[in-house]
Amino acid sequence: MVHNGIEYGDMQLIAETAFLLRRGLGLSAPDAARVFEDWNRGELDSYLVEITARILRTPDPQGSGFLVDAILDQAGQKGTGAWTVLAAAEAGVPIPTIAAAVEARSLSADRPRRLTASSLFPGEAAALPGISLDDLRDALFASKIASYTQGFDLLRAASASRGYGTELSEMARIWTAGCIIRARFLEDVREAFLKLPVPDLLAFAPFFAGELRRREPAWRRVVSAAVLAGLPIPGLSASLAWFDTLREERGTASMIQAQRDFFGAHTYERFDRPGVAVHTQWL
Amino acid sequence: MVHNGIEYGDMQLIAETAFLLRRGLGLSAPDAARVFEDWNRGELDSYLVEITARILRTPDPQGSGFLVDAILDQAGQKGTGAWTVLAAAEAGVPIPTIAAAVEARSLSADRPRRLTASSLFPGEAAALPGISLDDLRDALFASKIASYTQGFDLLRAASASRGYGTELSEMARIWTAGCIIRARFLEDVREAFLKLPVPDLLAFAPFFAGELRRREPAWRRVVSAAVLAGLPIPGLSASLAWFDTLREERGTASMIQAQRDFFGAHTYERFDRPGVAVHTQWL
Repeated sequence: MVHNGIEYGDMQLIAETAFLLRRGLGLSAPDAARVFEDWNRGELDSYLVEITARILRTPDPQGSGFLVDAILDQAGQKGTGAWTVLAAAEAGVPIPTIAAAVEARSLSADRPRRLTASSLFPGEAAALPGISLDDLRDALFASKIASYTQGFDLLRAASASRGYGTELSEMARIWTAGCIIRARFLEDVREAFLKLPVPDLLAFAPFFAGELRRREPAWRRVVSAAVLAGLPIPGLSASLAWFDTLREERGTASMIQAQRDFFGAHTYERFDRPGVAVHTQWL
Repeated sequence: MVHNGIEYGDMQLIAETAFLLRRGLGLSAPDAARVFEDWNRGELDSYLVEITARILRTPDPQGSGFLVDAILDQAGQKGTGAWTVLAAAEAGVPIPTIAAAVEARSLSADRPRRLTASSLFPGEAAALPGISLDDLRDALFASKIASYTQGFDLLRAASASRGYGTELSEMARIWTAGCIIRARFLEDVREAFLKLPVPDLLAFAPFFAGELRRREPAWRRVVSAAVLAGLPIPGLSASLAWFDTLREERGTASMIQAQRDFFGAHTYERFDRPGVAVHTQWL
């Protein structure tokens, strides 16, 4: 099930990147195919990137354009993505990239509503000034690290709470072949988990932490530019929001705790006295 | 339960906006309090905005600063937010703003991990150049419309599938008093649902659609600037991503459907022949 949740995330991130290539950078379908073919020779080498290139090259047998442009933009789902979201919500493990992918499919399915929304809220010119092909590859790769970190953390939590004894490195090895998310990437995931002394976040492994640091500036530029241009990138932006929430040393939760204590006397702890529940009679 | 999910969304959006005021614009706690007091005299007039101002004015009884800055940033939760996410996942109704609020609380709770992440991925200067107080108010209000649209859509869907016969305008009226999310806003929600001939998305009601159109440019500027600055805004950005996905006439799901047909022969439909399942032997 978690394999399929991760697959939903990969597909959504790739679909958004293809969308940015075409709508944001103005590439034709075969030009976008060439980009994915190029990426498929590097760190993004994977079955899903390979078939995305093939899809973009496929002419429309019923017309003069490319088949992908003739396909109705209403995504189906068999349920395994939503089950992954349910399992994560029950376990209290945040998997926002995968959740965004499931939500995007659900939103896509109600086309009459989307048509109403597109007439009520027409978009603007959708260019991505200053964004390069390398920036898009970096944003896709960084988001993929975020998504796999979330998915493997769900596996870790489920294994811990149910006593499955799941070896995360073995899960990664198994998925290197014979499944939809097979990819060179999973060899790096396997190695990262073999090297980590205790199962922790994939993004904390030295290899992936270095990759995230290197790609972070481009990741921000891409999400920021797409947001300004009004292009839909729920997966890419959820991935970056997850990253920024995770790495914030003093986050927004102080205010949440203050509010909870104000209206419900739920108490809070202090930085200088952790572990001690405090309640305040607020002004 | 859905009331509480919406409450999680409101609290997260307000906490993010307070964070942007202080970290992004450099306001002191009392100066940020003054902003919320000002906002509480307009369209954002609500119990949660009122107590946020009071919280920001409360001195730390144990020190020289303000109490909110002494409160440990680990949010608790009693479960109703997560239940709302579970119910929405089961119903197939996307509520990304509320889900982001629940995820942000879960992420905040694991402080040791966040400290590791903040040392591995240190932030940069976190200024928000060109962002005004009015921009932040617009981003907060637009995101609030997105969040309530999602929450009420979940109520509508649950009522339809379970035959509850829930009057959405009555729900809004009930919530105008005696609960945490009480606000002038709910009067507008009530009126909007009274005027809609059939229950549809709150954002489609003329009043709210106009507000979204008017505030959309500032909303984009705020999310874009915060993303560039590395400030965590999972709620604000999930709300905007939901809006952009909803209003996209030809979205990323064409590629998703092509991929599903490629690897699993799940079939797809065509824009020019909706309702007819097609399968392609891909290249």
